[in-house]
Amino acid sequence: MKAAVPLYQDLASRLAGLIRAGTFAAGDRLPSVRQASREHQVSITTVMEAYRSLEDQGIIQARPRSGYYVPPPSLDVSKLPMAARHSKKPIIIAQASIFQSVMDLAENGRVVPFAAAAPDDSIIPSAKLASITNAVLRKSRSDALRYTPPMGRRELRLALSRRLLVAGIKAGPDEIITTQGATEALLLALRATTKRGDLVAVETPTYFGILHLIRDLGLRAIEVPVCTRDGMILGALETALKKHRIAACVVQPNFQNPIGSVMDAAAKKRLAKLSEDHGFAIIEDDVYGELSHDGGRPPSIALYGGNVIHCGSISKTLAPGLRVGWMVPGGWLDEVKRLKTIQCPWNATLSELVVASFLDAGGYDRHLRRIRELYSLQCARTRQAVVRFFPPECRVNQPAGGFVLWLEMPADFDSEAFTVSAVAEGISLVPGTLFSPSGGLKNCFRLSCGFAFGPRTLDAIATLGRLVVRNG
Amino acid sequence: MKAAVPLYQDLASRLAGLIRAGTFAAGDRLPSVRQASREHQVSITTVMEAYRSLEDQGIIQARPRSGYYVPPPSLDVSKLPMAARHSKKPIIIAQASIFQSVMDLAENGRVVPFAAAAPDDSIIPSAKLASITNAVLRKSRSDALRYTPPMGRRELRLALSRRLLVAGIKAGPDEIITTQGATEALLLALRATTKRGDLVAVETPTYFGILHLIRDLGLRAIEVPVCTRDGMILGALETALKKHRIAACVVQPNFQNPIGSVMDAAAKKRLAKLSEDHGFAIIEDDVYGELSHDGGRPPSIALYGGNVIHCGSISKTLAPGLRVGWMVPGGWLDEVKRLKTIQCPWNATLSELVVASFLDAGGYDRHLRRIRELYSLQCARTRQAVVRFFPPECRVNQPAGGFVLWLEMPADFDSEAFTVSAVAEGISLVPGTLFSPSGGLKNCFRLSCGFAFGPRTLDAIATLGRLVVRNG
Repeated sequence: MKAAVPLYQDLASRLAGLIRAGTFAAGDRLPSVRQASREHQVSITTVMEAYRSLEDQGIIQARPRSGYYVPPPSLDVSKLPMAARHSKKPIIIAQASIFQSVMDLAENGRVVPFAAAAPDDSIIPSAKLASITNAVLRKSRSDALRYTPPMGRRELRLALSRRLLVAGIKAGPDEIITTQGATEALLLALRATTKRGDLVAVETPTYFGILHLIRDLGLRAIEVPVCTRDGMILGALETALKKHRIAACVVQPNFQNPIGSVMDAAAKKRLAKLSEDHGFAIIEDDVYGELSHDGGRPPSIALYGGNVIHCGSISKTLAPGLRVGWMVPGGWLDEVKRLKTIQCPWNATLSELVVASFLDAGGYDRHLRRIRELYSLQCARTRQAVVRFFPPECRVNQPAGGFVLWLEMPADFDSEAFTVSAVAEGISLVPGTLFSPSGGLKNCFRLSCGFAFGPRTLDAIATLGRLVVRNG
Repeated sequence: MKAAVPLYQDLASRLAGLIRAGTFAAGDRLPSVRQASREHQVSITTVMEAYRSLEDQGIIQARPRSGYYVPPPSLDVSKLPMAARHSKKPIIIAQASIFQSVMDLAENGRVVPFAAAAPDDSIIPSAKLASITNAVLRKSRSDALRYTPPMGRRELRLALSRRLLVAGIKAGPDEIITTQGATEALLLALRATTKRGDLVAVETPTYFGILHLIRDLGLRAIEVPVCTRDGMILGALETALKKHRIAACVVQPNFQNPIGSVMDAAAKKRLAKLSEDHGFAIIEDDVYGELSHDGGRPPSIALYGGNVIHCGSISKTLAPGLRVGWMVPGGWLDEVKRLKTIQCPWNATLSELVVASFLDAGGYDRHLRRIRELYSLQCARTRQAVVRFFPPECRVNQPAGGFVLWLEMPADFDSEAFTVSAVAEGISLVPGTLFSPSGGLKNCFRLSCGFAFGPRTLDAIATLGRLVVRNG
């Protein structure tokens, strides 16, 4: 005689099957208890018991006042990318010829865009920005269209001085300089803290834009590896500091691009202390800082002291096309102001007033809550598809914030050749070599999850999975 | 017995008296014939005869379908500034400490702003720009807010490729790069055509922003004097070319800032030929090119050949706060693209779409006609006030376009001390030293006429006149 399976267990195993099959994917909300009771013709109590059982098994997650969700695949440490092997010698950064080709793809709307770390249309609050722009132009008229001196509009610097408190930065409006995106801020920070030939510590891997600026300014780089969980490996920095005079250290402490790591308070404090002891500048690139997937905003290193130049922008949170960034140059305020007056003496008045107005009264926090959830979902779904379609030897990070995935393949994998094959299939991505000052990381690549996940994305990941096998 | 003076002669001499007294100033329209007939209680025929008589004497000018106007003071060559004495040796440009103070004043609304060459609120078509911005955001939604790759939005490059035909430049959209104002274009042009230590020929006097870029890039300058009527004195450039290898020559052929001169076709042709014979780049800064006071648009040097990089912007014609400029890099296209991808990889999408739409369908030519007249009027009135309130030994240019006046005082005049006194009286201006790579031109200064002329401006010129006498 077969033992009777309780109704709720039967329902739970059917639901678990649907989740395994992908009917409910990572981030999806399960039907409400009432709806499930109707769909499966069982009592509400049975559904609640089934959901609780699935929750106990970690297959679904309850979110207060929202319902039950399929969580992202759980963290399997053995599957995460490992810290990169790094060179301990100063490097004159090589020119990556493949970069221009990747950039040229950015305008091509037919390509599935895993290359640019750009927010999707669903992230950009275009209706709200349109109504704010309209209101700014109606209210300010030509005042919104005049020259703005290099420090930037005071309205925006005031809004930022309030906003930056959340990141632990106490800076008055006269200690903030607004820039054309974070790139201008990083450029000014590097120029203010270094001279030609100086040595700059960089994370490996790191955002390629930083490496381009360093090369362009005639600086040399020293690699510091990044660990998937904790960010910059400070022991490696300390070793380098024993041998070399380092002028500046560029770091993304919060949701590092491309690794997604976050430095904890102890690590930030230790880095701040190192910068004071050794007299180098910390150039903090914090463009992903507001994009925690669980909502907690990790602080700036500046909260813990140190010689910090903080750089940020609204390109990942509001609208990259407005080109609004900022920096808090700390002890380099006068020098940054001097340099900016030469190379970029006037700021974008209308953009700055629009962003100031959004920060002040546009429901920025509400907006952030919404896009954090979207980014988190897009990352989880893309990652889930990677796990499904890529060979098991592939390692992929599980970012706690931001929206890029970093994939590590076996050592003999050629990501540049792979990128060429992918582009031929109408899919863009960035090969690992661009993230390395020495042209290493050839077996890695980055996928951006800025764009909404849908059938086209799923197909593209499946295609990449096939190409990976062929290139492997 | 007294001979009877004809009625019309009597009226003419009364009107001439009113013009001398300033009741009708340069640029003012005289009352219509009908109105004057009523005001002076004479027949219409008498008024017409009086007006014709005044016109014959050059005291007033007829404009078809518009009426009779007081013309700007006639060109008195003996009163124009002379070409600057210039150094024939390469110069490492000195740092002008007074510059930062002048910049700091730019935000101060209480100062009478003769310093910044900025358009007045009456010049900026703010209502039209607001409605275009509104339409662009409604139509393009988030497409107007996304990243734009370094070449710039295609819509704007297309509009510019049509617009630049008027200046004699034939460039397809893929030969144009849009920039953040003309400053970015000039910076990229200098970087693409020179390397550290190279020699760059510059006009003396010239726009201080150019001198700052040259110094900042580690380049040396060689001075070429500018003549009030014909622009750059090419004989001096030829002399320099015999002794030195010159990598680039920065020139404002049309309505030079601060002299207001225009190079004629023969001079442009000769400079183009020199650049080909000696292999140097011509970096053409044409930001004032559309602002001829009589409406004729002088062409780019590129019309006559030569190795030209053309740079322009809408900062003087539409709205400086949008930060839209451009360049046609000619043979340096790839190198400029490479450099821009490093230092400024993304463009201001919304601003570029708004300007593209204005150029395509916003009545740009009609707008230009209106602002040319305004700028011309503001220059004429400010110049007239200078002639009235300044001592007779002062020389002042009479620009054919643009909106700046260049004043030359006796050799022992100290324009930096004068600037300090002026600022203390709430009036800003730019001392001549900032326009000279060698810190010369101490006896000169620039007054911008970008702002509407009114009683406050008149008072300020009167105050400057008193200060000139005191400083002299």
